[in-house]
Amino acid sequence: MDEVTAVHVAVRDALADLSGRSGPVLVACSGGPDSLTLAAVTLTTARAHGFRAGAVVIDHGWSAPASAAGAQAAGQCRALGLDPVRLTRVDAGGPGGPEAAARVARYQALEAVAAELGACAVLLGHTLDDQAETVLLGLGRGSGARSLAGMPAVRGVFRRPFLGLRREVVARAGAVLGLHPWHDPANDDPAYTRVRVRRLSGELEGALGPGVVEALARSAQMLREDADALDALAGQLLEQALTGAHEVAVGPLREALPALRRRALLGLALRAGCPGGALGHRHALALERLVVTGRGRADLPGAVVAQVTTSGRGPRLSLHGRIVAG
Amino acid sequence: MDEVTAVHVAVRDALADLSGRSGPVLVACSGGPDSLTLAAVTLTTARAHGFRAGAVVIDHGWSAPASAAGAQAAGQCRALGLDPVRLTRVDAGGPGGPEAAARVARYQALEAVAAELGACAVLLGHTLDDQAETVLLGLGRGSGARSLAGMPAVRGVFRRPFLGLRREVVARAGAVLGLHPWHDPANDDPAYTRVRVRRLSGELEGALGPGVVEALARSAQMLREDADALDALAGQLLEQALTGAHEVAVGPLREALPALRRRALLGLALRAGCPGGALGHRHALALERLVVTGRGRADLPGAVVAQVTTSGRGPRLSLHGRIVAG
Repeated sequence: MDEVTAVHVAVRDALADLSGRSGPVLVACSGGPDSLTLAAVTLTTARAHGFRAGAVVIDHGWSAPASAAGAQAAGQCRALGLDPVRLTRVDAGGPGGPEAAARVARYQALEAVAAELGACAVLLGHTLDDQAETVLLGLGRGSGARSLAGMPAVRGVFRRPFLGLRREVVARAGAVLGLHPWHDPANDDPAYTRVRVRRLSGELEGALGPGVVEALARSAQMLREDADALDALAGQLLEQALTGAHEVAVGPLREALPALRRRALLGLALRAGCPGGALGHRHALALERLVVTGRGRADLPGAVVAQVTTSGRGPRLSLHGRIVAG
Repeated sequence: MDEVTAVHVAVRDALADLSGRSGPVLVACSGGPDSLTLAAVTLTTARAHGFRAGAVVIDHGWSAPASAAGAQAAGQCRALGLDPVRLTRVDAGGPGGPEAAARVARYQALEAVAAELGACAVLLGHTLDDQAETVLLGLGRGSGARSLAGMPAVRGVFRRPFLGLRREVVARAGAVLGLHPWHDPANDDPAYTRVRVRRLSGELEGALGPGVVEALARSAQMLREDADALDALAGQLLEQALTGAHEVAVGPLREALPALRRRALLGLALRAGCPGGALGHRHALALERLVVTGRGRADLPGAVVAQVTTSGRGPRLSLHGRIVAG
């Protein structure tokens, strides 16, 4: 299959279940090669299937050239024929702010525009290479299956039609379609972790052979399904063990498989108000120790304390806010 | 903690549950920095705790210098005071044979020597760096949690006391102890995948920051526990669904979580005689399609055919040998 056909098949497949929906399909477009190709192909596909295709360009306001590139991307989308096209400014702490904060702000802005326009989907231009890089970033965190599971093809209103295509295929398709994408100089700046990981990905292919990017993405997909199954089963375990809003019977957790027990205990910590971003594997291990030994207490993030108490109905693990003196 | 203390604590902890066992503890020693340090530290620990400590040196017969290094390693172990010391020749297809075949032959030879000498454990010198490299190799395969789960600290008679220590810590400890390890020139030959991955591991630290080796090992440990839990649950699912030696009711599998369903189906294929090494994710997906659609057939490795049949008791998936004409 040639690259132009490949990108069209990918977008058609990603939109197949939306036929008959009235709202527009929106493309999140930076003006770069991946998302500009996505915008052009989505427009063709939408016309063939009776959708409307629009675009949202996010301007982080990081620099005058970046803002100019955003305005240019919006202009290109309008020139292609996408309608409506929104240029939305988001503020995520200004230049030098962490990449993660910018990502959160970007997705929130996209969701807000989608809701306002009644969009039935927001398409993102992430490719197979982005997926592999996301898995490598997850490796650096060392926080288990979920952090290695990469990006889902569909989550909520967001869809990633190109997640199974190599970046070079998408770029070549864009060139054949006569597009003139913007090449963000930040994509060559090794100050960004994402840029260093992109280079590493090439070296991974050198060390392990071609096909490693596909292998990384395949692993991510399998780990995502594993994590979904384990989360679902751990959720059931927690429901069975709950004896109060933030209290569980120790017995069922003690008998459970470790991978389920630890997830259930983290679930309990979330219910009790611990901030998710601060909870990690070591907190799961600390809670597990209380359950296995049947005694003791542990401090958790968000000023939450976990403690084992024993009543006539057997030991209980309860979580509550720490009482701060003074 | 200084490096000499760190290696002693690691070996002591790894042997803690063996006190009172009469057989010797054997160290698999190549004469390299990791396993020679392990041999020396195991001897000290064994003397302090009333064990006997011996060593096994495997000679693959790949080259005269490699065989000479093996003989020298055995001599070093004897000079340190380990007893018994065995130098065992294994044949895994001669030079150029695949790294995997050599590994299988090596472990079989170690198990045979352990059985013959009544050893209570065989210690392997793998470090945290080896663990990270194993995870990276698994990434290149793209075959899910189990292939990313790295090496276990304990499996059968084998134990890996240094799995939580950086290679450089173990090497420094060996130098402080006055050991003179052999530096295998094959460890610098990029013809070996393992050597290329070792270099990559350094670049990973450059891209993602220090601590990434520890993060990889931590991910491996969590994925191992996940895989153990999913295998156990999939085994239960398969038992519940079995209606014959190589036949299952489709209903329970259809309702199961995908991650469990696919593992249960691969378990069924193994029961039906498919060779484990040839079974992969695509066979799980092919079997899943039969279960979800409730009809069709699929060819599996080892001349096994899977087919859905419908009787009065609902659809069944059965696996049987392919009938070869002539």
